[in-house]
Amino acid sequence: MKVAVVGASGYTGLELLRILLRHPELEIAAVTSEQRAGRPVGEAFASLRGRLDLAFEANDPAALVGRVELAFTALPHAASAPTVKALREGGMAVVDLSADFRLRDLATYETWYGAHPATELFPEAVYGLPELYREALAGASLVAAPGCYPTGALLPLVPLLRQGLVETRGIHIDSKSGVSGAGRKASEDLLLAELDGNFKAYNAGYAHRHAPEIEQEATAAAGEDVRVTFVPQLLPTTRGIATSVYARPRAGAAFAAARAALEAAYESEPFVRVLPEGELPTLQSVRGTNFCDVALVEDAHNDTWVLLSTLDNLGKGASGQAVQCANAMRGWPETLGLLETAPMP
Amino acid sequence: MKVAVVGASGYTGLELLRILLRHPELEIAAVTSEQRAGRPVGEAFASLRGRLDLAFEANDPAALVGRVELAFTALPHAASAPTVKALREGGMAVVDLSADFRLRDLATYETWYGAHPATELFPEAVYGLPELYREALAGASLVAAPGCYPTGALLPLVPLLRQGLVETRGIHIDSKSGVSGAGRKASEDLLLAELDGNFKAYNAGYAHRHAPEIEQEATAAAGEDVRVTFVPQLLPTTRGIATSVYARPRAGAAFAAARAALEAAYESEPFVRVLPEGELPTLQSVRGTNFCDVALVEDAHNDTWVLLSTLDNLGKGASGQAVQCANAMRGWPETLGLLETAPMP
Amino acid sequence: MKVAVVGASGYTGLELLRILLRHPELEIAAVTSEQRAGRPVGEAFASLRGRLDLAFEANDPAALVGRVELAFTALPHAASAPTVKALREGGMAVVDLSADFRLRDLATYETWYGAHPATELFPEAVYGLPELYREALAGASLVAAPGCYPTGALLPLVPLLRQGLVETRGIHIDSKSGVSGAGRKASEDLLLAELDGNFKAYNAGYAHRHAPEIEQEATAAAGEDVRVTFVPQLLPTTRGIATSVYARPRAGAAFAAARAALEAAYESEPFVRVLPEGELPTLQSVRGTNFCDVALVEDAHNDTWVLLSTLDNLGKGASGQAVQCANAMRGWPETLGLLETAPMP
Amino acid sequence: MKVAVVGASGYTGLELLRILLRHPELEIAAVTSEQRAGRPVGEAFASLRGRLDLAFEANDPAALVGRVELAFTALPHAASAPTVKALREGGMAVVDLSADFRLRDLATYETWYGAHPATELFPEAVYGLPELYREALAGASLVAAPGCYPTGALLPLVPLLRQGLVETRGIHIDSKSGVSGAGRKASEDLLLAELDGNFKAYNAGYAHRHAPEIEQEATAAAGEDVRVTFVPQLLPTTRGIATSVYARPRAGAAFAAARAALEAAYESEPFVRVLPEGELPTLQSVRGTNFCDVALVEDAHNDTWVLLSTLDNLGKGASGQAVQCANAMRGWPETLGLLETAPMP
Repeated sequence: MKVAVVGASGYTGLELLRILLRHPELEIAAVTSEQRAGRPVGEAFASLRGRLDLAFEANDPAALVGRVELAFTALPHAASAPTVKALREGGMAVVDLSADFRLRDLATYETWYGAHPATELFPEAVYGLPELYREALAGASLVAAPGCYPTGALLPLVPLLRQGLVETRGIHIDSKSGVSGAGRKASEDLLLAELDGNFKAYNAGYAHRHAPEIEQEATAAAGEDVRVTFVPQLLPTTRGIATSVYARPRAGAAFAAARAALEAAYESEPFVRVLPEGELPTLQSVRGTNFCDVALVEDAHNDTWVLLSTLDNLGKGASGQAVQCANAMRGWPETLGLLETAPMP
Repeated sequence: MKVAVVGASGYTGLELLRILLRHPELEIAAVTSEQRAGRPVGEAFASLRGRLDLAFEANDPAALVGRVELAFTALPHAASAPTVKALREGGMAVVDLSADFRLRDLATYETWYGAHPATELFPEAVYGLPELYREALAGASLVAAPGCYPTGALLPLVPLLRQGLVETRGIHIDSKSGVSGAGRKASEDLLLAELDGNFKAYNAGYAHRHAPEIEQEATAAAGEDVRVTFVPQLLPTTRGIATSVYARPRAGAAFAAARAALEAAYESEPFVRVLPEGELPTLQSVRGTNFCDVALVEDAHNDTWVLLSTLDNLGKGASGQAVQCANAMRGWPETLGLLETAPMP
Repeated sequence: MKVAVVGASGYTGLELLRILLRHPELEIAAVTSEQRAGRPVGEAFASLRGRLDLAFEANDPAALVGRVELAFTALPHAASAPTVKALREGGMAVVDLSADFRLRDLATYETWYGAHPATELFPEAVYGLPELYREALAGASLVAAPGCYPTGALLPLVPLLRQGLVETRGIHIDSKSGVSGAGRKASEDLLLAELDGNFKAYNAGYAHRHAPEIEQEATAAAGEDVRVTFVPQLLPTTRGIATSVYARPRAGAAFAAARAALEAAYESEPFVRVLPEGELPTLQSVRGTNFCDVALVEDAHNDTWVLLSTLDNLGKGASGQAVQCANAMRGWPETLGLLETAPMP
Repeated sequence: MKVAVVGASGYTGLELLRILLRHPELEIAAVTSEQRAGRPVGEAFASLRGRLDLAFEANDPAALVGRVELAFTALPHAASAPTVKALREGGMAVVDLSADFRLRDLATYETWYGAHPATELFPEAVYGLPELYREALAGASLVAAPGCYPTGALLPLVPLLRQGLVETRGIHIDSKSGVSGAGRKASEDLLLAELDGNFKAYNAGYAHRHAPEIEQEATAAAGEDVRVTFVPQLLPTTRGIATSVYARPRAGAAFAAARAALEAAYESEPFVRVLPEGELPTLQSVRGTNFCDVALVEDAHNDTWVLLSTLDNLGKGASGQAVQCANAMRGWPETLGLLETAPMP
């Protein structure tokens, strides 16, 4: 099946190309980049030299009609929605990696992102976390791949919320991300000289756009209003998100039940690995892959459970997840193109 | 005043040398290292070539009698106490960087560290956080420099606990440390190949020895039992600790009061910088220094306050703090030898 | 075809597993590790959790007879030769990643490595650089995969030597390697705290074991005695080797001829990419892959040509190359299992 | 003595502030930055919070007249010269960190940098390498602090050239620099995501502006035309330059004479440490300092000597050197403000 990557010269776009090049069913038929239009892909990015014999095209949805069946859109939010709309009108299925179709509540979108350019597509958008929305993904025509931080927070948290095992207020989420999560932006703040050996929080508290996204899905899982405090932080490395979730058990909830809930939720999942007791997740084990490693730790003396997860923000946090969604949309095995092993070291 | 650094070839010992070499009142008269005894300091460590014309001696407290007035001991816990005892018997004042005299409750020490070799020194030991124990430090003969993690957690938290502004249960502390905090150990786990670009939690929940130390001082500040969940994590860099503390305000406590408490606590302190609203601490700003930067963020929608701090685990978290303590013991300005600016970048 | 990885818990062994797991013709039937014998692979290495359902066995060549047709041996030099001998006696083909069968001259081996335990295998050993020894590799039973540094130096240099375009004396090779090249050794020198942000030469001049290996193959290519000065250096990262080779053109040799020689040598090679003029190789473009990127720069004003190359020391520098050799031995396409794209970023 | 730092918000400007803050004779009376004019220094840079109670001013030389005796100018080349001219006309002594007054030959300047805006100052400019030009620096009114790469190449090479011990053609210089050497530029190429774990050459051969600067000083030392091939490369870290210089001994030149020449040249120098045989320089030992560590290695079998050096590109390679020059200009001990020990680790 022929696909396009729209906005292929950003980090999530490039990771999509890397994955698609090993996918047995998907063929990259078009790649677009406003900034690099006209340049052969292998000239613009040396890692792709000899790997992909295409040139970047400008971002023109109309030009893709009839050439591809599915498009991955890796454009900034707000810029993405009109392209998605045009692609859908052209008959293409879309997996959108922007934030434009993640939030189901328009007012929330407007609060955090501003005016929405294509609300008419809301009804057909499916939140692209296959572990939660597998059925809806089958045959879907528009999928909103989740944010990287929400994926790392929700995968460990949702099974506990679904079973009512933890309090829905006072959840604290402390996340640490590699800097590729900020995208390829020529910004002083993202220079190696500013970040090497550095570490810092940003948008701490309830000030990051992924906070309402986490709450949307957590609330859906719990069946009641969930509140989270969210502190995103930048790690001095390129890839990976590590997340600590602090939650208080509901009165009477047993730790064994929490562990059982987690294990039951993911025992058949190919990409979520619940670690045995005593083992904690590392970024190294998931880097470059579509895996999410999860652990659960009890602190009975302070009435707290700690959920820890790691994933690759460009893998399960973005492009890997997008391909997993595409597999799910088509009813293929979700692992197609995605079963790579993390480099060690 | 002549001083010795006992156990000078570990990372905290080497940082002590670096600081003492610029101290206007302290002169390094002896340095010890079992492993490197006999070797000139500048041969063993190229950074010290031409800086210090001494050879390492074996760790022999008796050999220091009459040569120095004060000894900094940078030995592993349990190994430190007998040396400290001998130094004290030889009439030397001691700033101990091990854990041996930090915990005031013997049973707690035994639970976390094992048998204690010199409990008779407990009464004279002062917990070496000058911002909390300045008066007791003046003229003290034995000071226990705090752990690196406790310093980062306590400096932001104590002012709020003292004024009863936050709940004393359900405090969540998420800490990230550079790997020099693990010391110089030839261990596979600490190799660059294992840690570069990696990130991982260890001893998560209530399983790290610094957790009871934090609770000891937090409880003293609050005047009631404080419970913390503590998750230490390794950053892929050498130096620095960043700490997020999640606390819930007591009923009726105003955020403005919390900020006022923090600012009042540290307005005269030379090394604790409370950042203005909107600014969050970074490791880069404190690396190589004795500063601790602190910020306070409100998440009213989830009834949570977030305290963020950064410090250098070898600076304010260990060797810088030890020198600050020595200054306080002698009644000198606490900034002597310590007012370096962090390299940027 | 069933294969074994002998010595699978070091870095080259683990990289072999990572590659073999995606190889369409090779199946991992056994993995050995003295240190981890008995442990399931996925417990010992979290990156392999869910990827490989085997336990480590002790290193016992006899136990592999009849179970595998080919063994990759990733043991330290001198320790490898006896195992290789036993494997060969058991009828298995071997790709050896140690240094034991790279040097064809016994005296040179003894000078640099000490006594050789199995010289009788010298006649059947083929130097495993497919770009140079493809014909000999077809059907070979024992292949010595080259050192990582020699691969990076020889690939750019050999085409020029073969055509007599550069002087064979006074060649200067300045190499920089990620620290995984030193293997997984619990050594103070390899700790992150010692190496992060650091850079240093070691065994500089003509003191590293890869220097005579480079000279052996350079001399074979030139048909006359070649002398190189070799300076290996450690980069503050895990993977990759970047090499600068400084050579002086022979009288009358044209730069255009040198470029033509390079391009002709590699135009049909899948893994050696000669970059166009104006582009220089980066580690990022080859990391995690079997590619070697090569550039040639003229400095006419100083009568010098500079050859630059990059490769992944665990990929084309070791395990990738070993799999490429296995493919060549069987007459399969050499790219089987090896056509991954480097992550960017 | 009151000084100004003109262009204080770039990396060399900030390092100047860090050094000047500990200088016993120099007082920072003014700091300028076009981009940050009006902002208090400690607000713009958190590392300076509480350290320096000044606000940035616009770059206006006239406004500095009468307020400072000496100005350090840390502006881009070409932009610097007019400011330097105005400062000199205002009666201030100047240490210029740009390239504008390093090259004594106008034609060479024009070839590499373009038109020169203030050639009339050429006669009074002294090349600010105190180890070579100490006498001329005493009382100088305009000093051109050398480039970072030239400092690392010249300090080891000059003593050998002065004594005619090495060939003056075919010198190969392979340099590796931390990325702060590229300055604070919001450029995609300098993002952490592009550079972390990466390594790459740029301007290789004879294409970097520091090549003619090296040749100028090498030629002056040798008393005859010296030619160098120069390959600069970017290390995945912030600070430090490591340099390998490959030179061939002149016929009859003994290695012992080379070592003696190096040791004699630097035995009284406070900042150049010639390492004993068997020891090689590391970045770690000089990071954050004004030291340059140097080693010399013989490869007799290939008729080559290898000179290795390390320094901090912002220390001895720029701002530290500038302060050393200021000390030399005033006849003060050159070590004032500069005797810091490198952090280890």
